[in-house]
Amino acid sequence: MKKLWGGRFTKSAEQWVDEFGASISFDQELVKEDIEGSIAHVTMLGKCGILTEDEVTIIKNGLLRLKDKAENDELEYSVANEDIHLNIEKMLIDEIGQVGGKLHTGRSRNDQVATDMHLYLRSQVEEIIELINTLQDAIVGQANQHVETIAPGYTHLQRAQPISFAHHLLAYYWMLDRDKERLQDSLKRINMSPLGAGALAGTTFPIDRSYSATLLGFEKIYENSIDAVSDRDFIIEFLSNSSLIMMHLSRFCEELILWSTQEFNFIEMDDAFATGSSIMPQKKNPDMAELIRGKTGRVYGNLLGLLTVLKGTPLAYNKDMQEDKEGMFDTVRTIKGSLKIFEGMVSSMKVKKEVMAAAVKKDFSNATELADYLASKGLPFREAHEVVGKLVLTCIEHGVYLSDLPLSVFKEASSLFEDDIYGVLLPETAVSRRISAGGTGFEEVRRVLEQIANK
Amino acid sequence: MKKLWGGRFTKSAEQWVDEFGASISFDQELVKEDIEGSIAHVTMLGKCGILTEDEVTIIKNGLLRLKDKAENDELEYSVANEDIHLNIEKMLIDEIGQVGGKLHTGRSRNDQVATDMHLYLRSQVEEIIELINTLQDAIVGQANQHVETIAPGYTHLQRAQPISFAHHLLAYYWMLDRDKERLQDSLKRINMSPLGAGALAGTTFPIDRSYSATLLGFEKIYENSIDAVSDRDFIIEFLSNSSLIMMHLSRFCEELILWSTQEFNFIEMDDAFATGSSIMPQKKNPDMAELIRGKTGRVYGNLLGLLTVLKGTPLAYNKDMQEDKEGMFDTVRTIKGSLKIFEGMVSSMKVKKEVMAAAVKKDFSNATELADYLASKGLPFREAHEVVGKLVLTCIEHGVYLSDLPLSVFKEASSLFEDDIYGVLLPETAVSRRISAGGTGFEEVRRVLEQIANK
Amino acid sequence: MKKLWGGRFTKSAEQWVDEFGASISFDQELVKEDIEGSIAHVTMLGKCGILTEDEVTIIKNGLLRLKDKAENDELEYSVANEDIHLNIEKMLIDEIGQVGGKLHTGRSRNDQVATDMHLYLRSQVEEIIELINTLQDAIVGQANQHVETIAPGYTHLQRAQPISFAHHLLAYYWMLDRDKERLQDSLKRINMSPLGAGALAGTTFPIDRSYSATLLGFEKIYENSIDAVSDRDFIIEFLSNSSLIMMHLSRFCEELILWSTQEFNFIEMDDAFATGSSIMPQKKNPDMAELIRGKTGRVYGNLLGLLTVLKGTPLAYNKDMQEDKEGMFDTVRTIKGSLKIFEGMVSSMKVKKEVMAAAVKKDFSNATELADYLASKGLPFREAHEVVGKLVLTCIEHGVYLSDLPLSVFKEASSLFEDDIYGVLLPETAVSRRISAGGTGFEEVRRVLEQIANK
Amino acid sequence: MKKLWGGRFTKSAEQWVDEFGASISFDQELVKEDIEGSIAHVTMLGKCGILTEDEVTIIKNGLLRLKDKAENDELEYSVANEDIHLNIEKMLIDEIGQVGGKLHTGRSRNDQVATDMHLYLRSQVEEIIELINTLQDAIVGQANQHVETIAPGYTHLQRAQPISFAHHLLAYYWMLDRDKERLQDSLKRINMSPLGAGALAGTTFPIDRSYSATLLGFEKIYENSIDAVSDRDFIIEFLSNSSLIMMHLSRFCEELILWSTQEFNFIEMDDAFATGSSIMPQKKNPDMAELIRGKTGRVYGNLLGLLTVLKGTPLAYNKDMQEDKEGMFDTVRTIKGSLKIFEGMVSSMKVKKEVMAAAVKKDFSNATELADYLASKGLPFREAHEVVGKLVLTCIEHGVYLSDLPLSVFKEASSLFEDDIYGVLLPETAVSRRISAGGTGFEEVRRVLEQIANK
Repeated sequence: MKKLWGGRFTKSAEQWVDEFGASISFDQELVKEDIEGSIAHVTMLGKCGILTEDEVTIIKNGLLRLKDKAENDELEYSVANEDIHLNIEKMLIDEIGQVGGKLHTGRSRNDQVATDMHLYLRSQVEEIIELINTLQDAIVGQANQHVETIAPGYTHLQRAQPISFAHHLLAYYWMLDRDKERLQDSLKRINMSPLGAGALAGTTFPIDRSYSATLLGFEKIYENSIDAVSDRDFIIEFLSNSSLIMMHLSRFCEELILWSTQEFNFIEMDDAFATGSSIMPQKKNPDMAELIRGKTGRVYGNLLGLLTVLKGTPLAYNKDMQEDKEGMFDTVRTIKGSLKIFEGMVSSMKVKKEVMAAAVKKDFSNATELADYLASKGLPFREAHEVVGKLVLTCIEHGVYLSDLPLSVFKEASSLFEDDIYGVLLPETAVSRRISAGGTGFEEVRRVLEQIANK
Repeated sequence: MKKLWGGRFTKSAEQWVDEFGASISFDQELVKEDIEGSIAHVTMLGKCGILTEDEVTIIKNGLLRLKDKAENDELEYSVANEDIHLNIEKMLIDEIGQVGGKLHTGRSRNDQVATDMHLYLRSQVEEIIELINTLQDAIVGQANQHVETIAPGYTHLQRAQPISFAHHLLAYYWMLDRDKERLQDSLKRINMSPLGAGALAGTTFPIDRSYSATLLGFEKIYENSIDAVSDRDFIIEFLSNSSLIMMHLSRFCEELILWSTQEFNFIEMDDAFATGSSIMPQKKNPDMAELIRGKTGRVYGNLLGLLTVLKGTPLAYNKDMQEDKEGMFDTVRTIKGSLKIFEGMVSSMKVKKEVMAAAVKKDFSNATELADYLASKGLPFREAHEVVGKLVLTCIEHGVYLSDLPLSVFKEASSLFEDDIYGVLLPETAVSRRISAGGTGFEEVRRVLEQIANK
Repeated sequence: MKKLWGGRFTKSAEQWVDEFGASISFDQELVKEDIEGSIAHVTMLGKCGILTEDEVTIIKNGLLRLKDKAENDELEYSVANEDIHLNIEKMLIDEIGQVGGKLHTGRSRNDQVATDMHLYLRSQVEEIIELINTLQDAIVGQANQHVETIAPGYTHLQRAQPISFAHHLLAYYWMLDRDKERLQDSLKRINMSPLGAGALAGTTFPIDRSYSATLLGFEKIYENSIDAVSDRDFIIEFLSNSSLIMMHLSRFCEELILWSTQEFNFIEMDDAFATGSSIMPQKKNPDMAELIRGKTGRVYGNLLGLLTVLKGTPLAYNKDMQEDKEGMFDTVRTIKGSLKIFEGMVSSMKVKKEVMAAAVKKDFSNATELADYLASKGLPFREAHEVVGKLVLTCIEHGVYLSDLPLSVFKEASSLFEDDIYGVLLPETAVSRRISAGGTGFEEVRRVLEQIANK
Repeated sequence: MKKLWGGRFTKSAEQWVDEFGASISFDQELVKEDIEGSIAHVTMLGKCGILTEDEVTIIKNGLLRLKDKAENDELEYSVANEDIHLNIEKMLIDEIGQVGGKLHTGRSRNDQVATDMHLYLRSQVEEIIELINTLQDAIVGQANQHVETIAPGYTHLQRAQPISFAHHLLAYYWMLDRDKERLQDSLKRINMSPLGAGALAGTTFPIDRSYSATLLGFEKIYENSIDAVSDRDFIIEFLSNSSLIMMHLSRFCEELILWSTQEFNFIEMDDAFATGSSIMPQKKNPDMAELIRGKTGRVYGNLLGLLTVLKGTPLAYNKDMQEDKEGMFDTVRTIKGSLKIFEGMVSSMKVKKEVMAAAVKKDFSNATELADYLASKGLPFREAHEVVGKLVLTCIEHGVYLSDLPLSVFKEASSLFEDDIYGVLLPETAVSRRISAGGTGFEEVRRVLEQIANK
């Protein structure tokens, strides 16, 4: 089939070669953005007197009809026309005749595809920010229920110190907040217009790039045409930001999975987010949490993939860059799906506060209290730590916990101990006293929740 | 919709949650392998007396009918049945009634999916080995035409020494040979049967794993059921091997792209593997080479993705492992497509031998000849190198090449020079004298081509 | 050897196990930050009445003495003390006696190490921003010399359209500008204080985290203690930003390498940034550009490494996170070294303007001019493209260029051609007419250079 | 300082540029291999009559003296001499005079460095195989103690079916076995000689590459000189194989960490492989397991780093390839250290068999037994699964386990149940009956252990 760029060619590629090279199978996802970009472009061509008002009107109407068809899934794409841009241009010409060929005046596919992706990512990033908000709300919702729910706090997956379960959940709130902040920062670099950069060098037509940028809601234009068509930073930055989101979710997933085990038993996932086994009738697996943890790999892979593509490629556009799209689309789908599922998992999970409460009563996570107790009475912290370490060892050897030891044993270890230590050893005391800024103390957690509510 | 594993569940997931978790949209690519595996399994169940002959016959016929439908694209998959395994099992029950429910006796989806992937990758790897053979043939075909085509050899992309163009092409032959060797080695680990490992622990039914393995053409069985269902090494190994293939192709692509520039101008790609520009009428871009170079990123990403998925996951099966498939399918498609395109590009490219011949006459790539000349006359190589370095500098300052220098200048630099050096400086001499094993000497290149022909 | 945390242990690790686990061999790079953090911490403890003024003075003086020793490289670190924190604490106790043990009151190594890394990265990122400025200056310096130097512009590494060489160089200016912007954005998340978060839960001592944060110049504090000690986003974000910098440099390297070939011959690298061959006396290799291109792999690897480390780890601190440092240090060294080298390469390279000028006279990069010419006379761009494509084909068949064709041939192709086309076909015209915003037109390039000068 | 290749250069690089480009700071790790390679090379030069016997003797003795010094750490390397090859050559000339300059006859640094790395990796891979053997022995040692130790088997980290703890441990034995097999396969491609390939094209000297290969114990030679100097596949293959090893170890680490929690409490790590906290006196953290899990990131990063380096680089040697070494050295150190630590952790860990035994009595991991029971009485497996699923739900609602249900409840659910089901429900029965090949049945596990012992 004759190509739109085929003037100097004497021979056509075979069908299977065309298919290997064509992007229409995936870049049709940009149909809306492609048409919008074209409408802005042709409007600008009219305003600048490069096309007549009539031409503009005919082309614009043709594009709007194609847009309608696109929304109704009525467009039929052809591999022979390679990509979304040539497909639409060809359909336009079929729709309105040769005048359609004037649409491409003063632009190239190189600035066109870049424009499409800037438009696409802008709206996707905005949607993702909204989905993060929703997940944060779900976290805050659970946190509000569990300020006074005492849970073991872990380091090295060993019981460390008792904490407010709300405090633990809110750690994820703040991670997501940074994720959102990064996405917002990235919008500065996404929301700029390459349109009018041409193939690489700009154009001889008296176009007005700022005008088309304004029509498309872009905040600024690229100041260098070669950069405009070669830049894929904004996609890599999106993939990096997405990798961090997935990393955070993978950590949360790991915890949901651990908490769902029979051994921890801190939560029960809603049936809606769990699945069974084809062979073991008792199984209730936290499938969605595992799947999202697994999907981290896919997003990391997409990031590395695009970094690899661009490494060492000379300016300006190279066909390698066609590989920028599938990983981006896949990441958008993965992030959006994962955030939605997560919101559901978190909102609907049942927290077993009595199991957690029982847990912290049977461990040594109150040992720091003793060391702090001694330190506050003037013993250097390092020595206090040593004294308590030995008391813990004594307990382990006798199969008891610290609060089970008689006062005499404490006093033998250090004369600074008094009988107020039994109160100090209570998990509630341990938590409630940690009111340093950002600490787990109930009072402080409530303050933070209020601060969040007032944002 | 009621799930096949739904006995203990009180609530179903919503449609969109199901969709997020389901794999049927992509694992339907395993339909052939899934049915083949089931046929072997049920045959084995019959042979071991676990099912009756009648039951086996009914189930097998049902499966064969599904296989026919699959080949004719007549199966309709449902997201509610999650994956290819439950979809097929459900269709089987619809086809032959409740007796279909006996197929799953003595196995689990965990060993079933592993079996499917071993079968899939075995046939794909074999196909890929064939495609490498074909590409190697194309390279050898060109090499046979160009044993005496002298081209500049490069290091650091600077002219280094003149070489036989065939010799350069054959470097890729050997890279691909190692790729093939690695794939063949990997078959040892691909061609083994997990079938009958059950969910993770084996089964209480008196099954015969070796029998089903034999029916499926597997060389051996996994000796540990937990390992059998948890192992995805064979996929990662495939992705690693594929990454190396793409790395090799990316280097070849880089060279084809360089050679196609107006500056190098060593080859002309066939129109069938090039494309034009939507804006610049003169352009003929080596698109396919660029695209394959770019696709390297995708395969690296798939490798990293699966490595990430498996990192730190406890035994045995976790839902994360569902993420093993899409990257594998994508890699198979990418490798097969790239190899096929490459075969076409290499076979059809036009080598401009006269351009290369002219090139080596206008450079300093014969400087090593002079150093070797002096060294063979007893001057320590280090000193010979120094002498020639200075001669080159003299040439550059005067805008001439080494063969342009009068004998007096040579003799001034070292009294060891005689007038036979002008012969030594000819590119043909430089190439033809390098007959050390594996060297670029015409004679040696012919010997290697013969060795390849006789393999 | 007895550990500072050894109270509850009955047995010590062997030396080689200690060595595997210790981080002192690399985290000593944080010695300055560790001591600064401790000084701020102890000052705060004094201000809050947790330690006496005397204790504070003694500890602070001890720390200052250690700081002096560190600056003079007089500290001797011990593997038995694991990391920089315990090494310094032990040295402090050796220096000032048991009171040194009070320094660790109200903090943990978990918040301490996080504080060190925030301090470290803040100063490194600031230095890197300065180095980018310097490289941008070098680029602008060359650009100012070459506004009217006409060079071939490439897409797909095929000659596309003639451009101003300054315009090409400035593309890198803008990439680096975004890199700088990203680093500046990241400072928001680097410049925040985890100090006082304790092991994970805050502390019972009445500390003032805002005060110690202010002493250290941090803009804000982490609002959640668990997040404060678990967060490594800021390092990953740095590694992502660094990967983008390296990606940009790798593209620039690729071009410098191409331009240095005998085939392109557009520049000559200064001897200071090139090396020779141990065997080929004529070689002058663009080593530094190749090496920096290669170092891209290292930085990508560091990014992927840390993303992998954090994937799926539960809160709060896990020992896995010790792996956050070496990749960060290595990346800092790589980025700083690469930027410095680059500044030198760019400033000192000799641009061969006459070679470039000659190049654009012997190609078809003026074909777009013809198409635009026809389009501006009303022919739909698509048809204009087709007409010119055929003219190019005619030229190739006859071994001539477009400006060599007689007017009659043009007119035969389209009656719209007039004899003003020969002016249009001149490279100077082609460049100078592209004055669309951000285009390569001399006038526009000068405007951008002025804009940059006035920033 | 004057460079050994400096003949044609007019200007030297500054010190800091030299440092950036030099590899001597890390490639000195190859000193032994570099000298060995040179000894073989010079021996071959003598045998082929290229050097005289006297020259050979002098050079060889000089090299042997340098080797002695190297072993006693008496060599002083200089950045000005760039790399290990030029450093040694320079020292040789200092040691024996200008005749030392003859060593480099008929070779280049390009084949020399490749030779060094082949030698290095061959010995390292052999050592690593030995270390895997040792770790496998440790696993088998524990497995032999725990054939009849019943533990919960997990999928999705949910209790699935009871298993022999030995069976679980042996899963890692087989993973490591494949790792070993892959390393052994890779030796084919490591143990081949590039020596004599020269800069890229072979040499004009009548060398005997097979002879020097034999002297160095190589099995074969590279058949193409360009390939010989450009090939880094063998390093990437090593990094891939290492990534798989680390992935396996990371999974084992995850389990050791889980099993060490207070919640699982299945093992106790030896004090020697655990550490304490600077603040929480009770802590005993499974540090080594966490650290190794974390080190997975580093090895993945090294793999991706080198894949990135080589992507798209043209033949033959480019300076980018200098980046092949540090990641390789780091990976070797990481793998060897991790395997050694692991052997210690596994050998010394205390398995709490009574805790595991108690665990499997209080769960539903015997549910599959009931389904298999019904299936073996003729109920289609799918229906059996459904019946048992509902029994499990009944149990959960009443807070009991399956063996607590009276027979009447069973019979109500299915008339196929008889009173022999209580025996079927015992964990011992469940395990012991799974004697399918590779299953967890005690008998089968013993058979496998015997098979391993007889390997």
